[in-house]
Amino acid sequence: MTDTSSGDVAADVLATARRARVASTFLATASRATKDAALQAIAAALADRCDDVLIANKLDVDAAATSGATESYLDRLRLTAARVEAIAADVVKTAGLADPVGEIVRGGVLANGLELRQVRVPLGVVGIIYEGRPNVTVDAAALCLKSGNAVLLRGSSSALSSNEALVAIVRDAVASVGLPADVVQLVPGAGHEAAKHLMRARGLVDVLIPRGGANLIRSVVEESTVPVIETGVGNCHIYVDADADLAMALAIVVNAKTSRPSTCNTAETMLVHADIADAFLPLAISALQQAGVTIHGDARVAAVDPSVVAATDADWDTEYLSLDIAAAVVPSLDAAIAHIRAHGTAHSEAIVTRSHDSARTFIAQIDAAAVLVNASTRFVDGGEFGFGAEIGISTQKLHARGPMGLAELTSTKYVVVGDGHVR
Amino acid sequence: MTDTSSGDVAADVLATARRARVASTFLATASRATKDAALQAIAAALADRCDDVLIANKLDVDAAATSGATESYLDRLRLTAARVEAIAADVVKTAGLADPVGEIVRGGVLANGLELRQVRVPLGVVGIIYEGRPNVTVDAAALCLKSGNAVLLRGSSSALSSNEALVAIVRDAVASVGLPADVVQLVPGAGHEAAKHLMRARGLVDVLIPRGGANLIRSVVEESTVPVIETGVGNCHIYVDADADLAMALAIVVNAKTSRPSTCNTAETMLVHADIADAFLPLAISALQQAGVTIHGDARVAAVDPSVVAATDADWDTEYLSLDIAAAVVPSLDAAIAHIRAHGTAHSEAIVTRSHDSARTFIAQIDAAAVLVNASTRFVDGGEFGFGAEIGISTQKLHARGPMGLAELTSTKYVVVGDGHVR
Repeated sequence: MTDTSSGDVAADVLATARRARVASTFLATASRATKDAALQAIAAALADRCDDVLIANKLDVDAAATSGATESYLDRLRLTAARVEAIAADVVKTAGLADPVGEIVRGGVLANGLELRQVRVPLGVVGIIYEGRPNVTVDAAALCLKSGNAVLLRGSSSALSSNEALVAIVRDAVASVGLPADVVQLVPGAGHEAAKHLMRARGLVDVLIPRGGANLIRSVVEESTVPVIETGVGNCHIYVDADADLAMALAIVVNAKTSRPSTCNTAETMLVHADIADAFLPLAISALQQAGVTIHGDARVAAVDPSVVAATDADWDTEYLSLDIAAAVVPSLDAAIAHIRAHGTAHSEAIVTRSHDSARTFIAQIDAAAVLVNASTRFVDGGEFGFGAEIGISTQKLHARGPMGLAELTSTKYVVVGDGHVR
Repeated sequence: MTDTSSGDVAADVLATARRARVASTFLATASRATKDAALQAIAAALADRCDDVLIANKLDVDAAATSGATESYLDRLRLTAARVEAIAADVVKTAGLADPVGEIVRGGVLANGLELRQVRVPLGVVGIIYEGRPNVTVDAAALCLKSGNAVLLRGSSSALSSNEALVAIVRDAVASVGLPADVVQLVPGAGHEAAKHLMRARGLVDVLIPRGGANLIRSVVEESTVPVIETGVGNCHIYVDADADLAMALAIVVNAKTSRPSTCNTAETMLVHADIADAFLPLAISALQQAGVTIHGDARVAAVDPSVVAATDADWDTEYLSLDIAAAVVPSLDAAIAHIRAHGTAHSEAIVTRSHDSARTFIAQIDAAAVLVNASTRFVDGGEFGFGAEIGISTQKLHARGPMGLAELTSTKYVVVGDGHVR
């Protein structure tokens, strides 16, 4: 790439970000009624112009197929009339959620009579860098719009035609209710170059949320001067304590592993207390195998059944996202906690136990976005938590941790009202 | 610098960060009683070993004087018995504050019977990079300790002897109550090299808080892969609206400019509505001049009094931190808002008005950490807001915005308790 074209990409990205910034000031003070009208208009336009979307999507899918993409990749990329309908239904659902903007987080009257309140305000301009599924394009736009934020969308090049069609529809709908179309924009330019300029647009972009694999997230974290919220990587554990209810433990392990293996809240490692191993392991191995799961076990687990694959060191750190699970026997609760500290990604960690003390110790000692007692890790999700929507699951500690709903897409400002107060 | 010494610095900084990480796991689950005992022990040890501190501080002050530091710089660097006593008193005050750790931010029972609660937990390891005043060393250590965080302190080289003496006292006191001394450490190594390694210690350090001038903050933001909370730069405005109470406006302008000019919540620009300019400007200029303030005015302001210095474009963007103020006449509230948007740093912005509409518009349209109506910007402060303490004032939108107290030094985790729940 020549300097000139690099400079052009930079200028294009920055111009896009500046338009977003200007548009964001209008959106920040838009009423809930206006924002909800925009969302309803988006849903209606998606229904009206579904054919445009499907035609554009076919270009992407055909190109990906020609270049040899796997069927599972093509499936994530593919849109159908039913899928577009589901995307539109989610937008309508977002319209029904409460507006986070204006919520008073805390407030009162200070001793000197000053009235102080901390009020939710939009972040401003949110950048989303994502892979694969084009449904993220509309989901992210709807959540940002509802929370009063302009959004800059950077999808994968394989979904470019789909994303362009979807964003055109969204922008027309937004404009139809009198909001600036530029509250929703695709970041222009090809390849990593454009993403890089987005990551350096500090002052124009308030936060970047990468959604995708570990490599994408690492690259954004390392290159970005814009603040980043890390999402997603989940090497989640289920620890079956010495006095767990066996039937409960079995149900939770099978559910956490198999109900939707590609999600970040899926269990990837099962740890079993030595005292219960003889009773529990044969049941667990049998049930997991019946569900099609390959077990990567340590020596003690492998000894139970010849079908168990011997685990390597790498298994303890692997987020399979598939019907595979690592399994180990641990001598104590403390050993389980130490294992999770060494190998977990601080996403979601569960204990199955009847011991009050074990539950309390696990809750206190495990440092993760979510700690669960006698429940499947699969519940760690914005929808399940009652947030109504989710832009991702943060695995960092700053700003938001765990499932992020509309409130997590806001900042606050302090409003101080006096009567001529001086200090 | 050779590769070898650079490698040594990197290894030293990372080893320090790893010790902090280990120590932080003990501190995270320490009881409030233990943490408060540590704080009381620190205060007592500062009193007992005040002479050690003063001797070490004299080395720093003498070296700075020899190298030609200004008297105001030396004054910020200098400790006295009274100042050490004040530092100790602040530590005792911190001990008296409520423990943020364990606070339930929200919670309840979901429709499926799962109990869900979001609980405050420490961030983990906090890095503070700061300039000048050695009192920050103890302040930051006390606030991090109270909020359950290990702290890595990176002060300026000019205060190294003072900081070493203070940290030695703090560490002994912490160890005396059974906590690991490594919850408080100075980052080893000289110059920018060591700070750079601290900024790249992602995964070991959870957040970096730079405290100092704009250059320091910019450098940390640009070089750091560890999440950063920006603090401090405040180009704050007072807008005097068309129907302001003149006496009130006068009192607020003089207070906001002169009560402590070196602080970030000091007013740096006064904007006056054209309709009130003839009545207000002579009063304001006279009062400010009596208080020793130099006024950098636009043509309309300069026309009122020959002592007014003609403002240049740079004045509108200058955080003087001195007895200087920029002043301009604006034709409307909208023009005032546009000026603040163009030149403000989103710290603290005030309007003086008797108009309900003007106040509402200003509150809605100004995007800043704090927006004030009929009150001095000087109130934007953790102590004034009733937080009991302050680690800095965030001017960013992520995680914390405005004065940061103990709660802003925490993250949260979700605790989910079920009865065998599967999805």
